[in-house]
Amino acid sequence: MVSEQLNRGLRNVYLDRTESSFIDGEQGILLYRGYNIHDLAAQSSFEEVCYLLIHGNLPTQEELGAFDKRLRRQRAIAPEVVETIRLNQKAHPMDVLRTGVSSLATHDPDTDDMSKEANVRKSERLTAQVATVVAAHERIRKGKEPVAPREELSHAANFLYMLTGAEPSAEAVACMDLDFILHAEHGANASAFAGRVTASTEADMHSAIVSAIATLKGPLHGGAAEAVMKMVLEIGTPDKAKEYVEARQPRIMGFGHRVYKAEDPRARHMREKSRELSARVGKPEWYQILQAVEEAMSRYKRHGIHVNVDFYAGSVYYLLGIPEDLFVPIFAIGRVPGWCTEILEQYDNNMLIRPLLRYTGPMDLEYVPMGQRQG
Amino acid sequence: MVSEQLNRGLRNVYLDRTESSFIDGEQGILLYRGYNIHDLAAQSSFEEVCYLLIHGNLPTQEELGAFDKRLRRQRAIAPEVVETIRLNQKAHPMDVLRTGVSSLATHDPDTDDMSKEANVRKSERLTAQVATVVAAHERIRKGKEPVAPREELSHAANFLYMLTGAEPSAEAVACMDLDFILHAEHGANASAFAGRVTASTEADMHSAIVSAIATLKGPLHGGAAEAVMKMVLEIGTPDKAKEYVEARQPRIMGFGHRVYKAEDPRARHMREKSRELSARVGKPEWYQILQAVEEAMSRYKRHGIHVNVDFYAGSVYYLLGIPEDLFVPIFAIGRVPGWCTEILEQYDNNMLIRPLLRYTGPMDLEYVPMGQRQG
Repeated sequence: MVSEQLNRGLRNVYLDRTESSFIDGEQGILLYRGYNIHDLAAQSSFEEVCYLLIHGNLPTQEELGAFDKRLRRQRAIAPEVVETIRLNQKAHPMDVLRTGVSSLATHDPDTDDMSKEANVRKSERLTAQVATVVAAHERIRKGKEPVAPREELSHAANFLYMLTGAEPSAEAVACMDLDFILHAEHGANASAFAGRVTASTEADMHSAIVSAIATLKGPLHGGAAEAVMKMVLEIGTPDKAKEYVEARQPRIMGFGHRVYKAEDPRARHMREKSRELSARVGKPEWYQILQAVEEAMSRYKRHGIHVNVDFYAGSVYYLLGIPEDLFVPIFAIGRVPGWCTEILEQYDNNMLIRPLLRYTGPMDLEYVPMGQRQG
Repeated sequence: MVSEQLNRGLRNVYLDRTESSFIDGEQGILLYRGYNIHDLAAQSSFEEVCYLLIHGNLPTQEELGAFDKRLRRQRAIAPEVVETIRLNQKAHPMDVLRTGVSSLATHDPDTDDMSKEANVRKSERLTAQVATVVAAHERIRKGKEPVAPREELSHAANFLYMLTGAEPSAEAVACMDLDFILHAEHGANASAFAGRVTASTEADMHSAIVSAIATLKGPLHGGAAEAVMKMVLEIGTPDKAKEYVEARQPRIMGFGHRVYKAEDPRARHMREKSRELSARVGKPEWYQILQAVEEAMSRYKRHGIHVNVDFYAGSVYYLLGIPEDLFVPIFAIGRVPGWCTEILEQYDNNMLIRPLLRYTGPMDLEYVPMGQRQG
């Protein structure tokens, strides 16, 4: 039955069922396939979370070993993809990631194989390769050669290694791994939903992931971490935070979320990393500024405006020395397994996604031939 | 208010208002900005329809002249885009189009300018350039050099010229122009909707068009014309059509449409071109086979299953000598102005598009550390 009601933003519309993740925005609860994000953040690894999302259950030691080996072996990207990145190196890193991942399809042996098995293989391969595309672009645009992936490093360690050419500290690896875990899956957010819309036409996995990347680029989706970092730089010292917030409240970057009306459960883990890291690298004022902003915003908690994961993520990336325009690509690296999981669900029980629009323009205008038209 | 009802496929969900096109699926009516598709098919040109969609009204002679000049002058694509196409030439033409258009963003002076004026400029530029990307790939994969666009040719004529290197017949140009007009806009179909989802995060126009192209690739959306052509080849002679249909009904490609429960109003124009063209090129059996299939399917009309535009479009492309895997890219060339129009509407009155999913998996599973897990 068609309801005449408009559903702008599809805000309260249930698209479908899912078994990938559970989000309770009122309580601030996030589960990946039934497991609480706090348990995963404390005890798991990104590789294990990828297995959990893509394959549906926690792996045994043997399953995880085999899965991780497949990821490690599939990190390299074709020379033509590297050349494609080189030709497009001047674009924004998200544009380059979009072009580079689109180009991965050219060289993937399974691109147009729509079997479940091939789609799972592509999910694993894309999880492994997206990090390589991001790192290769960073090297190329700095005038350096891409760094080949190293099989003995974890996903997070290898990404940081490919970015800089130096083996990262255990602390940096732990931050990156945690960040990837926290960003791995989040329901039908705009990018995953765009991937589902693309998949709903039975377009292939690479096409759907390209749509997701294109959608994550938007500042209303992936851009908040970068905006928070710029805000901290603008504020400069902790004592200026209150005044800054007073002048702009309640529209402060990193606060509020379409779904969470309680504190984003991912925020606390990045808060802790931000605190540790800012002390360790000798920039405690960074964490102090963030704390002061959060304090000044506390009155909005009763209106459901709380700190979200991006608020502290930006500071962690900054303190790790990562260029600000890589913040969104890093979000993408973490989110690939979640996108793949949502897309696999769409394929498993597909229906073409095509809403309606209500026409409000003029009806039955007379087509006046050019010669008789009034200027 | 959240309704617990699932809206799989968003089938009966009104997303928003539109002034781009009106579709009455029960009556088989299609208007572009208030003008009937039959009037536009009979009297307009693709360039005029592009102006109408992007700018909102029919142009004066002077406005059309200036618009057309901008299109003609912006057809060329950067050498780096040609090289990107060359590096990815072995992929499906829709994959190459996706990668090539993603690469256009690298070289567009307005990529990250989100002003209305810049978005209109990009709409015009993309309308002009997408045809060049398709033609350049076709030349390169055939081992030939791309053919530079010619400013004195119309959009349709220039596309056919860039494809073959020879000036096309007036009849071929008329077919192509009509085909582009008929495909120019069609509401919130899956590809335009994917573009809107991407745009709703305030991602740029190129990102949104890349999502649309990725989505059009799927066989449930853009692939029907190719499937119909293959069906005709398989049937072979008009007398075999009935038997073929009997064995497979009612699932015959080119019949039925998510929106149209009457005959797709675009079908009659392509039917006429198919009839003319098959007679002219000495393959009247082509049209006869299609007619015989339509006749054998006539009993399904009372169930709302009618012929759609793709049913005859595939035969027209085939009779024009166009390779079958370019049918969907040609659909894309025609649809670019409609995608841009839908995306401009989304930007004008934006709200992040993010539906909900209902979680049906297990709750609160206990995270068992690896050492204690059962094999």
